Amino acid sequence: MSQIILSINAGSSSVKVSVYTFNPSSSSPPKQLASISIAGLTAPPVALTYSRGSTSVAKGKKIDNISNAQDAFKSILEHLTSDPDLEELKHPDDIAFACHRIVHGGDYDKPTRIDRDTYHHLEALSALAPLHNAGALEIVKAVHASVPKASNIAFFDSAFHASIPAPARTYMIDPAKAQQNKLRKYGFHGLSYAYIARTVASHLQKPQEDLNIIALHLGSGASACAIRNGKSLDTTMGLTPLSGLPGATRSGDVDPSLIFHFTHDAGQPSPGSSKELHVTRAEEILNKESGWKALAGTTDFGEVSAKAEKGDEMAKLAFEVFVDRLVGYVGSYFVKLEGKVDALVFAGGIGEHGVQLREAVGRKVQCLGFEVDGAKNGKVGKEVVEEISKEGGEGKKVLVCKTDEQEEMAEQCAREADALRRPEGK
Amino acid sequence: MSQIILSINAGSSSVKVSVYTFNPSSSSPPKQLASISIAGLTAPPVALTYSRGSTSVAKGKKIDNISNAQDAFKSILEHLTSDPDLEELKHPDDIAFACHRIVHGGDYDKPTRIDRDTYHHLEALSALAPLHNAGALEIVKAVHASVPKASNIAFFDSAFHASIPAPARTYMIDPAKAQQNKLRKYGFHGLSYAYIARTVASHLQKPQEDLNIIALHLGSGASACAIRNGKSLDTTMGLTPLSGLPGATRSGDVDPSLIFHFTHDAGQPSPGSSKELHVTRAEEILNKESGWKALAGTTDFGEVSAKAEKGDEMAKLAFEVFVDRLVGYVGSYFVKLEGKVDALVFAGGIGEHGVQLREAVGRKVQCLGFEVDGAKNGKVGKEVVEEISKEGGEGKKVLVCKTDEQEEMAEQCAREADALRRPEGK
Repeated sequence: MSQIILSINAGSSSVKVSVYTFNPSSSSPPKQLASISIAGLTAPPVALTYSRGSTSVAKGKKIDNISNAQDAFKSILEHLTSDPDLEELKHPDDIAFACHRIVHGGDYDKPTRIDRDTYHHLEALSALAPLHNAGALEIVKAVHASVPKASNIAFFDSAFHASIPAPARTYMIDPAKAQQNKLRKYGFHGLSYAYIARTVASHLQKPQEDLNIIALHLGSGASACAIRNGKSLDTTMGLTPLSGLPGATRSGDVDPSLIFHFTHDAGQPSPGSSKELHVTRAEEILNKESGWKALAGTTDFGEVSAKAEKGDEMAKLAFEVFVDRLVGYVGSYFVKLEGKVDALVFAGGIGEHGVQLREAVGRKVQCLGFEVDGAKNGKVGKEVVEEISKEGGEGKKVLVCKTDEQEEMAEQCAREADALRRPEGK
Repeated sequence: MSQIILSINAGSSSVKVSVYTFNPSSSSPPKQLASISIAGLTAPPVALTYSRGSTSVAKGKKIDNISNAQDAFKSILEHLTSDPDLEELKHPDDIAFACHRIVHGGDYDKPTRIDRDTYHHLEALSALAPLHNAGALEIVKAVHASVPKASNIAFFDSAFHASIPAPARTYMIDPAKAQQNKLRKYGFHGLSYAYIARTVASHLQKPQEDLNIIALHLGSGASACAIRNGKSLDTTMGLTPLSGLPGATRSGDVDPSLIFHFTHDAGQPSPGSSKELHVTRAEEILNKESGWKALAGTTDFGEVSAKAEKGDEMAKLAFEVFVDRLVGYVGSYFVKLEGKVDALVFAGGIGEHGVQLREAVGRKVQCLGFEVDGAKNGKVGKEVVEEISKEGGEGKKVLVCKTDEQEEMAEQCAREADALRRPEGK
């Protein structure tokens, strides 16, 4: 009998849920039935978007009386169970698995069922990522209350990077303090990189364990990853998602002493900080008040590109800073992979839609044997993986991958369903 | 008539002076007469080393009653003027130029005579680099008092990097704050890179304006530089020398939020801080208590290499972290130079003597067309520039350059002597 998986992705301002069905006794991948999201929690109006199969049921519909992630999840559940055309999901008890995307997983290296113990571990981990983990844990509570029979599974964005070797993950700081405070490179966007590795290997008709790629997940948070033999070899984000590439509101790497020359309040708690959620003014400035928003006045990179093309100087600078950092990492990861690279892969919102960005990056990395085809780049098709490299050449492909973190959770959940399912009576 | 140039390099714990003679009416380069240093100012015993030409006069001789840079300079001057065999320098008035190596030059892009105004500018700049500039300014005062007739010239370690284009030197932070507080990438080791560019161009028999190299200045402070058409295109150090590569006691780049998870005192003034010298605990930890000293217990990278070879795990880790970061930057700069690279150049104490390090880096960057010859690498000769690459191949050379910041100051000073000399009566 088929079962229902919910894949839940809670951001700071939104909750997204995808509904899948899968058959535990078959090896077919889960099939998506519906997708629903509530956005604007921290910047009203709060709006709901809902699609079932290829039917758009609601798009940006304003809804009232919702101001936090828990209420948003309850509302989503009501919408789903009361939709007469979603026959597979009539009652919360129909849900077998709730998959939760959790940004910081510390030392967890695989999906883990959330019981009382793991929940407390995850709470403790929030100290390392107060800006990122708190929302997801709120949702876990809401699911536990509204969908008591489901198994709650935590999927960690850091888990894919557990394979990063010690030299790349070690900071050259006091090792006793590093161990005590768990200070090392963790890396994030791991669900996306797992999806990319799986689908690109399939596209190239290679076993994943033979796949060597440089993958770029470029969204409002952006990172790069060197993947060797299908596993993470290095990535740009570090202890937290702040380091590496700049993002919509993130500075990315800066001189570690910069913030103390930016403000004398660097070490003070930020106004929104609490005892449970200790965030310094420094972390707030570098995570929330920097990036291309600070330089070009918008979090929308498509707008940055468009303004840059029209000659807006600050937008042009933001675009060029991003390209500068990106091509640097491509070169760096090319060397770490010792030149054995099957493909350079663009993914994430900007990776999928940033025609000018892909062109600008492509121009710079030609010297490594990647060649972007202008015509293909301007007209990326609908497949999960699309090629935009020139035919022939040195055989190093350039690809665009429509990554899907929620599908990746459902996929991994279905694959490991027996191991992940909550034992009877627990 | 020939004239005397003193090239002065004041570190936090030592003062080094090289003595040159040059003929203003000839284009011959300055000739070194003597070299003298006093070390151990912050970690006694204080010891003097002095060589004249190829004669070693004193080596690590203990001296008393000296505890600061000013006294050290006075003692050095006495030793020089009282040496009967140093005929060219009998009296302080014989000194035409005193060249001062100053780490942080802000927006200064060339050597500048120090008058009252520039001195105050330099004092203000110390706010950006309190750990690095203060010592040099003490020496300027001492020279002004003891050698009143000399022209004092400031040479900035950041000046060579004035050519770095905006995208590489811009941090993605609030641009108003960046402008107001002068927050951008400056880069350091510029005197060394100027020396490397000049001597490598000469070795390759190319005009410097056609030279494209990746240069690595590796000492207790370490950095890399992409040089295009003889000019700096990018470098790893940033607002301060902290960012980029790790060093003997420096962390190099870390997640910008790491320090707030390391200590709750990150933003507090360090115990040695004063009103003039504002240094946070964070800056002290990351500049003075990190690097391979923290990981492997020694500031001597030769010892790190030796212990690593003998199987010491932490030394091996420190060695491998350094190689990991280094090869990443080589890849990054290869792309920024669009693959047009004449040579990879090792310089600085570790660059000159680190046989194992050069071998380890060479192995990783083979994929870019660099090939280190094992035999040549193990036996670097006495020339200023030595080749360690295999004959033939793709024509990308690997070189070792015996860089000399003091000679570079003397060279630039002699070349621009007329423009730099203090006008009569000023």
